[in-house]
Amino acid sequence: MFKANENYAKLPGSYLFSTIGKKVKEYSNAHPDAKLIRLGIGDVTLPLAPSVIAAMHSAVDEMGKAETFRGYAPDLGYEFLRKAIIDGDYKAWGVDLDIDEIFISDGAKSDSGNIGDIFAADNRIAVCDPVYPVYVDSNAMSGRTGNYDKASEKWSNVTYMPCTAENSFVPELPKERADVIYLCYPNNPTGAVATKEQLQKWVDFALANGSLIIFDAAYEAYITEKDIPHSIYECDGAKKCAIEIRSFSKNAGFTGTRLGFTVVPKALVLDGVSLNSLWARRSGTKFNGAPYIIQRAGEAVYSEAGRRETREMVAYYMNNAKVIREGLKDAGFDVYGGVNAPYIWLKTPGNMTSWEFFDYLLETVNVVGTPGSGFGPSGEGYFRLTAFGSLENSLEALERIKNMKG
Amino acid sequence: MFKANENYAKLPGSYLFSTIGKKVKEYSNAHPDAKLIRLGIGDVTLPLAPSVIAAMHSAVDEMGKAETFRGYAPDLGYEFLRKAIIDGDYKAWGVDLDIDEIFISDGAKSDSGNIGDIFAADNRIAVCDPVYPVYVDSNAMSGRTGNYDKASEKWSNVTYMPCTAENSFVPELPKERADVIYLCYPNNPTGAVATKEQLQKWVDFALANGSLIIFDAAYEAYITEKDIPHSIYECDGAKKCAIEIRSFSKNAGFTGTRLGFTVVPKALVLDGVSLNSLWARRSGTKFNGAPYIIQRAGEAVYSEAGRRETREMVAYYMNNAKVIREGLKDAGFDVYGGVNAPYIWLKTPGNMTSWEFFDYLLETVNVVGTPGSGFGPSGEGYFRLTAFGSLENSLEALERIKNMKG
Repeated sequence: MFKANENYAKLPGSYLFSTIGKKVKEYSNAHPDAKLIRLGIGDVTLPLAPSVIAAMHSAVDEMGKAETFRGYAPDLGYEFLRKAIIDGDYKAWGVDLDIDEIFISDGAKSDSGNIGDIFAADNRIAVCDPVYPVYVDSNAMSGRTGNYDKASEKWSNVTYMPCTAENSFVPELPKERADVIYLCYPNNPTGAVATKEQLQKWVDFALANGSLIIFDAAYEAYITEKDIPHSIYECDGAKKCAIEIRSFSKNAGFTGTRLGFTVVPKALVLDGVSLNSLWARRSGTKFNGAPYIIQRAGEAVYSEAGRRETREMVAYYMNNAKVIREGLKDAGFDVYGGVNAPYIWLKTPGNMTSWEFFDYLLETVNVVGTPGSGFGPSGEGYFRLTAFGSLENSLEALERIKNMKG
Repeated sequence: MFKANENYAKLPGSYLFSTIGKKVKEYSNAHPDAKLIRLGIGDVTLPLAPSVIAAMHSAVDEMGKAETFRGYAPDLGYEFLRKAIIDGDYKAWGVDLDIDEIFISDGAKSDSGNIGDIFAADNRIAVCDPVYPVYVDSNAMSGRTGNYDKASEKWSNVTYMPCTAENSFVPELPKERADVIYLCYPNNPTGAVATKEQLQKWVDFALANGSLIIFDAAYEAYITEKDIPHSIYECDGAKKCAIEIRSFSKNAGFTGTRLGFTVVPKALVLDGVSLNSLWARRSGTKFNGAPYIIQRAGEAVYSEAGRRETREMVAYYMNNAKVIREGLKDAGFDVYGGVNAPYIWLKTPGNMTSWEFFDYLLETVNVVGTPGSGFGPSGEGYFRLTAFGSLENSLEALERIKNMKG
């Protein structure tokens, strides 16, 4: 008799952004005239860059002619894209990578969720708290997180590393066991960054303990300050303990175009096994590559024009971030992030919980954000706004929130 | 200390088509002048249909303008595509499906591999032998298949259902436990089909035993004979026991474009759990949708022109299949398949093993096929050729093989 994966029944609710989507839809249906401003899910709004559009038109034409048609892509992705990534994303920061260390995928969410396939069942994961829900949920689905306790909103077998204003949202090294450590800098949701010195401590810890670091660098393009590492491989020894996950969603607006990649260095040998080989085996068996057309789109991001155009997009969003951050500060809010990241993280006013503030904002001023507690228990009392809207909407949302407070 | 998933170490070799790719590359490097004809991996060669190309150009343009730009897609896929699928693929065969029962994905390989995420660890799987390697390999990676025995080439905890010329490649109902049964018709690799009556027996067996059927219908478009079911849901009760996986790779040439879908009926409640809900949770957490542009390409396949154009592609390949099948028959080979499927399955001549014949064909006449034993122990002594080449190449491969035999 078929038995279902019993771990799914332990999950406390639906995926965070599905819940928010449902709530907003219900409100919207009940109030069809409300002019909602959506600064909740981290979805971009600017159209794709002209170079990317041109590259896709050209690739589409290739697919329509017998001489240039492409069938199955190489397992790990096309070399033209992997080479562009190595040259464009890593050489600039002094990191040398081999082409076989880059795995092209359909996005960082898939990679973040699927990477657990190569972990043994009894690893203990350690996550920042608050954190991007996919890390914990995907491990919960594999039975790696123990049981969920409703009161504390914690899993019994997860090492939580609180990130609050008190530690500037960079956690202490864990005192509990931590076999797999998830780090994300610039951080989603807090917008915090780690300095190279701080990150090196984590690498040293992982090397000393035989831990694996999963480093999510999806927001790397938003770093504006110097001395903030763009890749974990800028730290000594990181190739021996870290996997890095990257995305085209936020630097080039590919949320609906789907492209990402994961770096698994050949030097990454843990538990006597090459994780590069394991991930290659996983990818070769359960994945069939990103579309050729989309890989050409990714390549165009690294062209001279593509770089210029996507940098302008990032600058546009970062201007929104500045406007929201400074505006909320002036209005008396405690505000974090928004300097090296497209997220503004704020303390909820009064003693409102995160979800109370979510409902209040939605109903009073029709602004959608993300409740901090949705990212983990230490996110309670915080709230996330994204800079991915238009400048006009960001300004209007700000005005509405200011007036609401006053 | 990090521990790797120990199940990977049990896998006997690399993914079948990776092994073949490597062997061919080595031969090619050593014999740069050899004119290889590749009838191995089931990769298409005709360019995408004009309607599909037009739809993609138009979608690319939409992505380049702020007013029509699309970010994250809906979790389960765009409604325009799910609706086109229901109307185009199911209503015609008398099957009613709800839009929330269709899950759009990046292809049938991903879905075949990932579907195991919702199974408990201790289900016993049953597979046809020979079989598409992803079913077994992905379950092996999750520790569901026990240990691999080199001598018998079998996993200790898998129910193998031999498919040979003796039973016309449609297996008997299993006598051993079978919690999850993988069926693929039209079949890869044998090219066999199951009649509605035969398929109904499997549905009845699953219903009686509380088993789940994973029905892979990737080759549905190649059915030419009447009374062969195009969907398992044509059988009574199938919605209560079966998941159907479909692909755009073979009917519309999307091997390098990547699109597929999986049907999980709401009536499919096993072990007290709705598998539709489980798969929705899995998809929402570990996947972020297929690209908007590609979903529009998929929609175009169902337009009037798209249907006509893709039917012509299928007819072209089926003519190749006929040419190869008839030619080999005339030359004295025992040949199967090729009537309702793009695969020709033949007995190796003399007493050659499948891999011996693979090497012999590669080295003597520079034709690449797939050794039957790569699909499972009962595939030993068989060999697969695909009809996805050009007519010219199919004819030339045939000539070379005929002359080699003579």
